[in-house]
Amino acid sequence: MDYPNDQAPGAPVRDGIPEHGRIPKYYAVKAQIAALLSELNEGEPLPVERELALRYEVARETVRQALRELLLEGRLRRHGRGTVVAGPKLAQPLSLASYTEGVRRQGRRPGRALIGLERFPCPPALAAEIGLEHGEPVWHMERVLLADDERVGLESTYVPVARVPRLDVEFDPDSSFYSYVHDRVGIEFGSADERIETVLATPREALLIGTPPALPMLLIHRISYDTGRRAVERVRTLYRGDRFSFTARLGSDGW
Amino acid sequence: MDYPNDQAPGAPVRDGIPEHGRIPKYYAVKAQIAALLSELNEGEPLPVERELALRYEVARETVRQALRELLLEGRLRRHGRGTVVAGPKLAQPLSLASYTEGVRRQGRRPGRALIGLERFPCPPALAAEIGLEHGEPVWHMERVLLADDERVGLESTYVPVARVPRLDVEFDPDSSFYSYVHDRVGIEFGSADERIETVLATPREALLIGTPPALPMLLIHRISYDTGRRAVERVRTLYRGDRFSFTARLGSDGW
Repeated sequence: MDYPNDQAPGAPVRDGIPEHGRIPKYYAVKAQIAALLSELNEGEPLPVERELALRYEVARETVRQALRELLLEGRLRRHGRGTVVAGPKLAQPLSLASYTEGVRRQGRRPGRALIGLERFPCPPALAAEIGLEHGEPVWHMERVLLADDERVGLESTYVPVARVPRLDVEFDPDSSFYSYVHDRVGIEFGSADERIETVLATPREALLIGTPPALPMLLIHRISYDTGRRAVERVRTLYRGDRFSFTARLGSDGW
Repeated sequence: MDYPNDQAPGAPVRDGIPEHGRIPKYYAVKAQIAALLSELNEGEPLPVERELALRYEVARETVRQALRELLLEGRLRRHGRGTVVAGPKLAQPLSLASYTEGVRRQGRRPGRALIGLERFPCPPALAAEIGLEHGEPVWHMERVLLADDERVGLESTYVPVARVPRLDVEFDPDSSFYSYVHDRVGIEFGSADERIETVLATPREALLIGTPPALPMLLIHRISYDTGRRAVERVRTLYRGDRFSFTARLGSDGW
């Protein structure tokens, strides 16, 4: 039987090429460049567009489309004016409350840059989600997430002012919000509900994170509860889809 | 303060429009169409391209780009030659072993269509992942996942032949593989490791699932173990990013 014996089980079957039907030309080039990448090391430069077009005997626009997809998928990254082989995606555990700890575990240095901290009356949609009265004051803290100074995500945290009244004066926005809430405010986290989806970066998000607009992102919605099942926060975190994956270990209770 | 009081906490801040910098014209149109969608019900048709171009005083190509993003994000879906308002994404629990059960819980009818079942010698990459000897026979079963007859995903299951030697003659490919393995073969599942990422559909995948090529997808890698921590299967499941989200409840042990 002709099953390709070096098939990686995480890769698309048959390099994603249809058994019948037309193979788009750019995709055939993409598959060839992907094979080339697997022979190069992380950080090594890719031949320039013109050279690839000559090598595969296609138009430069065809090469450009292939490179665009490889960039969106995080196989390549821009480096100065050129393109280099990207490292593997960060694998962030879903089961950790803290971005900080997840990034540290992978040997990267976590950081955050404050975009804004605002206090406003809780709108109805948020009130319903976290069990507040409409109009009660809430904080909205927006931060860019960094790993080794690379911008990798954008996080909006919504939290009742009554829970953390001194957030604006006490909290260092480049530190872990979880540590602050736990160690300083004394709230014990009990559980969290998360939902993960893929969305396209908006122009504002692309500008703040420094990604191409419309890059596929992973969006995680989270509501965290204290041990008394009262909501502590509502978080919306956007991670670069080309740089992140999420892992979970499911126990037998989940079956 | 001018914080928009109807801000939904799951939505991008300020509709994703930068405070400074240029707003792409198509994006301004997209935001207006998104507002229009929120006033329509699921399944209602959107005005045609030409009419939207007139209404917003832009070129039809600008409207087309806005509609393309709304389609990729699952806000709209094609219906015949037109475009209608899409329903919410399915929210599939990550903690369930079974696609079947997750889809049923949402009131949809799960189904599967067999693409192929092949038996081949285990390649090194797969052998390392599931603790087999290189060359031991494994099955590769590939199925399209259906919800109410709509194609929503594509699943590759790799499983040692020694574990389920009669898979090819005993198993109904339109039924749950988990139920088969559990009820008929008598294997107890103990735990699973999952990794979730976003990728672009390959042309072959797009053809099989019936999506536009390069649609952002959610890809879940899973290795399931029995109660003795021996790997049972290695699964690669691709879900339409415009139709699926995944949920998880994290307990205090994960903190």
